[in-house]
Amino acid sequence: MPISEGQNVLVIADNNLGKRKLYLFKVSSKQSYSTFLGNIQGKDILDRNFGESIQLGKGRIYLIEPNLYDIIMYELKRKSQVIYPKDSGYIVSISGIRNGMKVLEAGIGSGFLTIEISRHICPNGKLYAYEIRQDMIEIAKKNLEKTNFTNCVIINNQDVREGVNEKDFDAAFLDMADPWNALNKIHDSLKISSPVIVFVPTVNQIEKLLSNVDINKYVIQEISELIKREWEPRKEAIRPTIRAIGHTGFIILLRTLKAI
Amino acid sequence: MPISEGQNVLVIADNNLGKRKLYLFKVSSKQSYSTFLGNIQGKDILDRNFGESIQLGKGRIYLIEPNLYDIIMYELKRKSQVIYPKDSGYIVSISGIRNGMKVLEAGIGSGFLTIEISRHICPNGKLYAYEIRQDMIEIAKKNLEKTNFTNCVIINNQDVREGVNEKDFDAAFLDMADPWNALNKIHDSLKISSPVIVFVPTVNQIEKLLSNVDINKYVIQEISELIKREWEPRKEAIRPTIRAIGHTGFIILLRTLKAI
Amino acid sequence: MPISEGQNVLVIADNNLGKRKLYLFKVSSKQSYSTFLGNIQGKDILDRNFGESIQLGKGRIYLIEPNLYDIIMYELKRKSQVIYPKDSGYIVSISGIRNGMKVLEAGIGSGFLTIEISRHICPNGKLYAYEIRQDMIEIAKKNLEKTNFTNCVIINNQDVREGVNEKDFDAAFLDMADPWNALNKIHDSLKISSPVIVFVPTVNQIEKLLSNVDINKYVIQEISELIKREWEPRKEAIRPTIRAIGHTGFIILLRTLKAI
Amino acid sequence: MPISEGQNVLVIADNNLGKRKLYLFKVSSKQSYSTFLGNIQGKDILDRNFGESIQLGKGRIYLIEPNLYDIIMYELKRKSQVIYPKDSGYIVSISGIRNGMKVLEAGIGSGFLTIEISRHICPNGKLYAYEIRQDMIEIAKKNLEKTNFTNCVIINNQDVREGVNEKDFDAAFLDMADPWNALNKIHDSLKISSPVIVFVPTVNQIEKLLSNVDINKYVIQEISELIKREWEPRKEAIRPTIRAIGHTGFIILLRTLKAI
Repeated sequence: MPISEGQNVLVIADNNLGKRKLYLFKVSSKQSYSTFLGNIQGKDILDRNFGESIQLGKGRIYLIEPNLYDIIMYELKRKSQVIYPKDSGYIVSISGIRNGMKVLEAGIGSGFLTIEISRHICPNGKLYAYEIRQDMIEIAKKNLEKTNFTNCVIINNQDVREGVNEKDFDAAFLDMADPWNALNKIHDSLKISSPVIVFVPTVNQIEKLLSNVDINKYVIQEISELIKREWEPRKEAIRPTIRAIGHTGFIILLRTLKAI
Repeated sequence: MPISEGQNVLVIADNNLGKRKLYLFKVSSKQSYSTFLGNIQGKDILDRNFGESIQLGKGRIYLIEPNLYDIIMYELKRKSQVIYPKDSGYIVSISGIRNGMKVLEAGIGSGFLTIEISRHICPNGKLYAYEIRQDMIEIAKKNLEKTNFTNCVIINNQDVREGVNEKDFDAAFLDMADPWNALNKIHDSLKISSPVIVFVPTVNQIEKLLSNVDINKYVIQEISELIKREWEPRKEAIRPTIRAIGHTGFIILLRTLKAI
Repeated sequence: MPISEGQNVLVIADNNLGKRKLYLFKVSSKQSYSTFLGNIQGKDILDRNFGESIQLGKGRIYLIEPNLYDIIMYELKRKSQVIYPKDSGYIVSISGIRNGMKVLEAGIGSGFLTIEISRHICPNGKLYAYEIRQDMIEIAKKNLEKTNFTNCVIINNQDVREGVNEKDFDAAFLDMADPWNALNKIHDSLKISSPVIVFVPTVNQIEKLLSNVDINKYVIQEISELIKREWEPRKEAIRPTIRAIGHTGFIILLRTLKAI
Repeated sequence: MPISEGQNVLVIADNNLGKRKLYLFKVSSKQSYSTFLGNIQGKDILDRNFGESIQLGKGRIYLIEPNLYDIIMYELKRKSQVIYPKDSGYIVSISGIRNGMKVLEAGIGSGFLTIEISRHICPNGKLYAYEIRQDMIEIAKKNLEKTNFTNCVIINNQDVREGVNEKDFDAAFLDMADPWNALNKIHDSLKISSPVIVFVPTVNQIEKLLSNVDINKYVIQEISELIKREWEPRKEAIRPTIRAIGHTGFIILLRTLKAI
């Protein structure tokens, strides 16, 4: 079954000398696609099946059918800073959530973390996402549609810092500039012992959270950050890549106490 | 509803001077439990509810109802090196798997990665786990029972390096000493474009994999490692912890090609 | 020339299975020395020359004549947290100091950074070290004697936060809890454009320094930290060590402005 | 004393919003200099003294007299990959060298490590540098002249893999593609117990060194790498910079044994 007009293709381009790049192309017979190994015509891709490769002048490109990871990394729209699998994988893993749970998220941003949460709680759970910006909601919705995760997500165009409508959440995820302003408001909507995971880019925000969190309502379980190092897949010169992302954000895991 | 006899309790102990430790106790009225803040009697815990705290001489302990994350970190049995959420969260996120998929895992080890995979593909998917050691299977089974993930996991006491019985896998996860000996054998059982994620502790294993993988069968998508830094949650002295885990393993993501 | 009674010996012990440990022993014919490979008698070491090795039951020990690095790492006395070569090498390199320069240090601590500075400015330079604790001065003096760096170091038992006696420093190094209280006081004693390097363990201290430094007196050139990863020297299993030091401190480089 | 025609000026440009950049300009009254904050005329700089600052439309620039660190980072010519202070500071610190010692270096590269070594052994020591490429020698010489370190450096246009002319070295530094081909050749020219520090970018080179080093001639003391994280000096948003250098090289410290 050859690749068909309008399908997305993940292209892994490799010059066999240690340089590699990935692209996601929506393939049309009328278009030409540029890679660091040279140009490739849409019609040359359409002749092929997924899993095949094409030799270009300076190297080889591999045609891969995109999965959820590729779509997240290369296809989804992003407005504002998003949370990538390096962090979202860990955030959701340490939240302990699973299929069937009821979860709170604020704000929704471009929906990247929303998708990762949905992978764990759907099909039987429900994610209530709070977001004040209508433009972000539009983007998140499109991204949820593209990844087929609309069914268990309910989006509220409301400010989480004014409280939430629902009760008995199993977990909460806060990706916002001032999470300390939401924490005390949402406390009574969370089950006791439930995890709240906060993601913030600066240490000042850690400090403000620690200074403002009501210690009768929450206890800190851990604060951590993940540094990702990519390695070059070249068997005769194995080493980390020279350019890297040095920082994304800090992950704070709190647990909900029984208010006194 | 007070904590009941025999229940597990996650205890977060904090001396308010920057030292903190976590414990998971199965509480009995007849037992005493030791923490770095001093001893606590089981009956004193049983008087309380989850979400409450107890002042000890040198600090305070918080009584939290354990969730899946706590169970993974503090309750499950482990024989051999296990894969922790730092790595398993990322491994499963980049695999792109989701509810309903059919997935291969080898070996099963203590079942830590098995649980993380199950969180994504259950209830409608199926995970086929291959493991040659019967003792590991026993431990993995107990851990799957404790976390309620037995339903969608089928364990085969077979050597993956001799091939697998099933077809059309959406993804494969290899946590074994010589993954290169499995890769070529399982290729025809994997869907084209499907991801294979390999976890190895040494660079020698990366090199051997790169040297032995059939480049007509697989293409490398990325190689990476995650370095986790924990931070001390003390608002007047925010800094990374001094002692750390410097290394666990390398994560290799391959994609399956159409064999020539 | 065999090793003589009372000499220091750096012992590198290796079990050929990936475990290694280093020791520094002051060798006496009457003593026994314990290593993870078993015990070794002082008289068995005294029979040997530097550069020789001895087979013990579980591995081999190598007898090395200690140099300045070994003395710093294994012989010098330490009271309070010291600055190790990972940081001191970088700190002194980015200060741009060289032989003949006049340099300020406060506090002296156990003298580890003092030694590193001395290696660069001696024999013709002068280091003026300020320290309020007499007990630290005693330790630093002993360490400077052991490493033969007393000639170009002048120690003042004074509080740098009350200003310094000297003028025209080429550089300053501050390893103290509240460097911001020293910065404005020492400004007029520093040459314009001269570097000031501050070492602090917490981010709160970075914040306080940035909040309290007089921006008419100093400009920040860079803030950085170094994470050291040790690797296991075992050719068939090359990987970072599992246990690591995750954090020591942050290094802030300021440059002195012409006060307005 | 105002800045004079032809002088080098380190310019620290800061927009007060978290973006900063450093430049080194050789100032001429006839030239204009471009910064991310806008252009500045040479004659406007020449009106000022070091340590002064100038307000541009989008931020402020600080005029600093360059020291050795600034010259190394921003002025010296570089051909091929150089060793920066992050690594050179540590490399030289762990070598234990000091004023008066006799040291071997190969190859000299652009001379960046040569300068760092010279800072420790000059004025009374001698550094013998071996380099096969005449073009590298020319660059290194110019860089040594610019930093005033020619006096104690002797450059040999010879291949260190064929052995060296001198005897009784206190230490050796190898920054070359195949250090294992030099190690056995230079052994007899090194004092027993003396350190040899090797710098290599790939793990393959660590493996080859470990496989090829004569274990009767050398013992490994440590292998390490340093990861540098820069932090943004913005008091209300303290965090590591997003873009970073993820890797430079691995540092191997060996000690010389008494050959059997």
